Amino acid sequence: MMWKQFILNKKLYLLRNSNDNGRFQIFITDLLSLWTEDLSEEELLQRCKDMNPLHEASSEILIQRINELVELNSSEVKTTLTENKNEQLELGVSSYLKGVIFKIKFLLSLGSPEMFFKQMTSPLIRMVEELQERQNKLFDLLNKKDIEIDEYKMGGMKITRKNIETTPFCKEEFLKSFSNEHVEMPRKSICPITSFINNCNELYEECSKSIETAVETEEKIPEENLTTGLDSKTDKESTSPRKAKSKRGTGIVYEQGSDEDDETYFSIPNQAASTTSVKKEKSPTKKKRSRIQDMF
Amino acid sequence: MMWKQFILNKKLYLLRNSNDNGRFQIFITDLLSLWTEDLSEEELLQRCKDMNPLHEASSEILIQRINELVELNSSEVKTTLTENKNEQLELGVSSYLKGVIFKIKFLLSLGSPEMFFKQMTSPLIRMVEELQERQNKLFDLLNKKDIEIDEYKMGGMKITRKNIETTPFCKEEFLKSFSNEHVEMPRKSICPITSFINNCNELYEECSKSIETAVETEEKIPEENLTTGLDSKTDKESTSPRKAKSKRGTGIVYEQGSDEDDETYFSIPNQAASTTSVKKEKSPTKKKRSRIQDMF
Repeated sequence: MMWKQFILNKKLYLLRNSNDNGRFQIFITDLLSLWTEDLSEEELLQRCKDMNPLHEASSEILIQRINELVELNSSEVKTTLTENKNEQLELGVSSYLKGVIFKIKFLLSLGSPEMFFKQMTSPLIRMVEELQERQNKLFDLLNKKDIEIDEYKMGGMKITRKNIETTPFCKEEFLKSFSNEHVEMPRKSICPITSFINNCNELYEECSKSIETAVETEEKIPEENLTTGLDSKTDKESTSPRKAKSKRGTGIVYEQGSDEDDETYFSIPNQAASTTSVKKEKSPTKKKRSRIQDMF
Repeated sequence: MMWKQFILNKKLYLLRNSNDNGRFQIFITDLLSLWTEDLSEEELLQRCKDMNPLHEASSEILIQRINELVELNSSEVKTTLTENKNEQLELGVSSYLKGVIFKIKFLLSLGSPEMFFKQMTSPLIRMVEELQERQNKLFDLLNKKDIEIDEYKMGGMKITRKNIETTPFCKEEFLKSFSNEHVEMPRKSICPITSFINNCNELYEECSKSIETAVETEEKIPEENLTTGLDSKTDKESTSPRKAKSKRGTGIVYEQGSDEDDETYFSIPNQAASTTSVKKEKSPTKKKRSRIQDMF
C-alpha cells in the first residue's frame, strides 16, 4: 500500500499498512522516527469485534472494512493520535457505517534503527539509484535523437517551422541549468513529507520490493558475499516490532561466512573497490593492523 | 565535503567532514545511526598539538593536514574505530609524514533523530524530487525532438542509414520497460552504502544545501507557513551534537505562529491539499474534534 499523509496535533505524518501472509502491519513515520504494529489476522479481528460489538459481519468483510479505514481516503474517516510514555503511538481510526461508528485502534511501538533503514532510508537510496539509471538512459535516447536529426540535416533538409527546431542536447549544460535554477528559484516543496508523497510514493513500492528481494537472495549469490545489512535472523526480528529492540551500532555487517577468520577483512565488491578509501582497507596483514592499533 | 566510504571491523561506514565558520564537524553513519563531533578550530588545534608534540607547523598547515587525513584519499591513511559504552564512536586517523606518525582522534556522539533526518533522510528526499524534476524535463525534451523529426519526415525526407532511426518516445513504455528490468535483472548494487556513494554523493551537497536554505528562509515566506521540520531553536540544537539529545517524537511540527489558537488546525499547502487524506483534516470545527475524541 502507498504511504498516506495526515496531519494530527499540528504534526504531519505518513501512514502505510500492509497485509501479507495473514499478518497485518501498520507503519507511521514523521520521517524522524518510525512506529509500527504487527498483528495476526486473528488478533486484528478479535480487537475489531471487541471494539464494535454491534457490527455483525463475516471476518472477510471486517478485514476489508479495516483496510478501507486505514486507507484514510474518505472524508468520513476520523483519526486520533496520542503518544504515551513508552514511546508508543496510539492511533484511532473511525468512520460512521450506516449511522453506527465503526472503529479500530492500533498501538504502535517505536521501531528500531534497522526498521527505519528498511522502510525509509534504504528505499530512498534505491529510488535515487533507479532515477539515476533512468536519467542515463534518457541522456542516451536524446543523443540518438540528435544523431537522427543530424542525418536529416546533412541530407540537405531544411525545416520550415523554425520554432520546432531543437538545439543539440548537451548533458553538461542540462545539469548546469538545473543547478542554476536551484540558486535562483525557491524550492517548490520545502516540506519533506509533502515532497515524499509527491515524488517518492510512486516509486516506493517497487524500490522497497527490490530491497527485500536483495535481502532474501543474499544467500544465493555467494560471489557477491554482501548482505543489505542484516543477517537473516536480525532481519526477521526487525520486521516483527514486538521483538524489535533499538540496537544502535549493530550496523550493516558484511560477513563473509561464519567459518571466517575473525582477523580477515571482508573483500570488497567491484564497485566499492573503485573508491580509494575502501581499497586501502583491503586485506591488510595482521602485522599491519596491530601496527595501526598501536597508534592510538 | 563529499561522503567517503570505509570498512572497519567488517562494517561499512560513510564519513563526511565540514569546515564552516571556524567550526570543524565530522559525521559517521552506517545508514542506521549517525555519530558526530563538533569542535571549534581552537579545540581541534589543541588536540592535534597534544597528540603530535613533535610536529611543528603553523595552525593553518595543521588544519590543512587534518583535513587531508579525514579525506581518507591516500592509501597511507590508517583508520581505527572503536565503540564505547556511551554509544560513542572513537575514530582514529593517522598517516606517516616524513617518517613520523601524524595522528588525530575524534570522539563522536550518537546524533538525534533530527540530525539523521537533516543529514540523511531529508537530502535523500530532495534528491528524489530533483531527479523527478529532471526526468520530467528530459521527457519534455524527447517529445520536442520527436516533433522535429516528424517535421523532417512529413517533408518527405527518407533516412539512408536505417539503423540510426529512432522510435517515437513514449513515457509510459519507457517507465514500463524499467519496471520490467527490475523483475528480470538482479540489482547492480545491492549494498546501500555503495549505492549511496555511486548514486547519491554527487547530488548530496546541492540537495542538503537547498534544505538548509529552506529552513533558514522559513520565517521569510509567510504565505507558505511551512517549516522543514524544526523550529529554529530545535534546529540549532540538532546541529550542535554536544547539545543534541534523542528527542524521538518531537517530529516535524507545522506551526502557523505562536499567537495561533491551539485548537485551529494548520492550513495545508496546495500540493498537500491535493491528497484526499489531508483534505479532510482541513479546519474541522471544534465541535467535530471533540466528537472525534469522544470516539476513543
